[in-house]
Amino acid sequence: MEETNLNQTIRCIVKLGGAAITCKNELEKINEENLETVSSQLRQAMNLGSCSNKVIGMDWSKRDGVSDISSSLADSDDQCQFTVDFSRFVVVHGAGSFGHFQASKSGVHKGGLNQPLVKAGFVATRISVTTLNLEIVRALAREGIPSIGMSPYSCGWTTSERNVASADLSGVAKAIHSGFIPVLHGDAVLDDRLGCTILSGDVIIRHLAEHLRPEYVVFLTDVSGVYDRPPTDPNAVLLREIAVDEDGKWSVVKPTPQSLNKQVEITVAAHDTTGGMVTKISEAALIAKLGIDVYIVKAATSHSLKALKGELRHNIPDDWLGTVIRFSR
Amino acid sequence: MEETNLNQTIRCIVKLGGAAITCKNELEKINEENLETVSSQLRQAMNLGSCSNKVIGMDWSKRDGVSDISSSLADSDDQCQFTVDFSRFVVVHGAGSFGHFQASKSGVHKGGLNQPLVKAGFVATRISVTTLNLEIVRALAREGIPSIGMSPYSCGWTTSERNVASADLSGVAKAIHSGFIPVLHGDAVLDDRLGCTILSGDVIIRHLAEHLRPEYVVFLTDVSGVYDRPPTDPNAVLLREIAVDEDGKWSVVKPTPQSLNKQVEITVAAHDTTGGMVTKISEAALIAKLGIDVYIVKAATSHSLKALKGELRHNIPDDWLGTVIRFSR
Repeated sequence: MEETNLNQTIRCIVKLGGAAITCKNELEKINEENLETVSSQLRQAMNLGSCSNKVIGMDWSKRDGVSDISSSLADSDDQCQFTVDFSRFVVVHGAGSFGHFQASKSGVHKGGLNQPLVKAGFVATRISVTTLNLEIVRALAREGIPSIGMSPYSCGWTTSERNVASADLSGVAKAIHSGFIPVLHGDAVLDDRLGCTILSGDVIIRHLAEHLRPEYVVFLTDVSGVYDRPPTDPNAVLLREIAVDEDGKWSVVKPTPQSLNKQVEITVAAHDTTGGMVTKISEAALIAKLGIDVYIVKAATSHSLKALKGELRHNIPDDWLGTVIRFSR
Repeated sequence: MEETNLNQTIRCIVKLGGAAITCKNELEKINEENLETVSSQLRQAMNLGSCSNKVIGMDWSKRDGVSDISSSLADSDDQCQFTVDFSRFVVVHGAGSFGHFQASKSGVHKGGLNQPLVKAGFVATRISVTTLNLEIVRALAREGIPSIGMSPYSCGWTTSERNVASADLSGVAKAIHSGFIPVLHGDAVLDDRLGCTILSGDVIIRHLAEHLRPEYVVFLTDVSGVYDRPPTDPNAVLLREIAVDEDGKWSVVKPTPQSLNKQVEITVAAHDTTGGMVTKISEAALIAKLGIDVYIVKAATSHSLKALKGELRHNIPDDWLGTVIRFSR
């Protein structure tokens, strides 16, 4: 890894949660409306201060239902007024309803590449997640974001018992340096112990955050943030601020502990065993421990736009809905 | 690059010519029939000696017009009878009617990433060629070939004034070692002098051949091989065998030089200046000079199947249609 290349300021790493950009309950279906809004918000956030400039569409490929691919090029002769310089972001997305069926049907995450079904599932999973990656790259490109799909498998990410064993970040750094926005994703990868496994978008985010040291990290999800119990529970309380100490321990700062009764805390623990809430906070806490603010917020809302723009760094408005996880000495 | 990983016998590197697998005159249109036949022939060639075994389909994603994605999994419970072990091939494909419009409209091959149109064209070109790559990976996977798309850009290929400057082949070697068939393609890449350029599939093939030393190389095209003048000319003669000497000079062995009159030789030269024939032979000659037989043959024919299977290595039947380029001391 060329460490020197990593010495450039990355403004933000964004996770597009699978549940936020795909339709959870429908196989391989993109939530087009959300994806379009998320892409537009990303462009606004990356392009601060020059929002009056026109953008040049960068997806010139055929689309279902769109007959003329050159329409996005209509005014491209007058290049000077176009903005193609964006602040440095890295996008990582989850799989949502892509890849999940293929991975769970074959057990790719458990390894065993010598089994025909696992090997087939590995190939099938990669086809599904790279299909989603291509669609997200295209959606961003249509907004004029110079996005470049970078599959972790192809970029040399491997694991050892599911922990990142190698990840050549020089390619990501080079893309950023050239003015592109790398778009990575949860992927099926080779594991030197298990043969293969699934590398999740969240683990990728943490690894990137550790090495690229962005100013802040945003998780776009399908709910307003982290709750004290499943958000479908009518009594669920949104945890607005979580503090992480030097040992990586986290505690709820807002709402105040007094307002969260003991029964609630038990519910948190119970929820954890089903794998979810606390696992997510733990990953975010590891990033926050580096001194990097983490915002978990509902995608395609006014709240997510504020988070993406970095407006929350110094002051969090009372009416902002979401969870902030930050380091406190 | 871990050179040790490259010490494995690669049987064949195949180039799927853009003209053979796409419809040349229709933007971003795949020649489905040819691609299906090519994929089937590749499976037969990779799977010598166990052709009676069933294959397991590896594309489990949704397809237009196919409602049930799990149909390819119908019998997958009985895994033992499935063949997923293939001899070592690497597939490289051209762009054909994908990428060409985007690249030529923006001049990506000439570089200049700081120009908005070039930057947009770089993104648009990559979207188009990776769309084709995904479709080819899917077609191969449907035939049960454990194919893995590996974009040269993502894999760290860069150029210096259009010559390969860096190409980390350890990822390709690792994929092969794990029993996968890497599928690379002509791509837009970063160039350390020009900013960016187009890296052609033919240059990728030559670089791979030099480092992976396959037993033979097959170019699948839309004509029967190399002719002495444009194959659309009714007097065009198929050059059946070309010998390459130690200096890289090539000469036609079959048909015998006597049967090719002087006027024909002039036509070859004239054709060259328009960029095509001799350039193609030159690339192939550089591979042949390594002692690796090169077969240029029409895709999806009985002749291409023979070439892919390696049947021509010791004896070329008189009725075989195609061009052999080989080293002669």
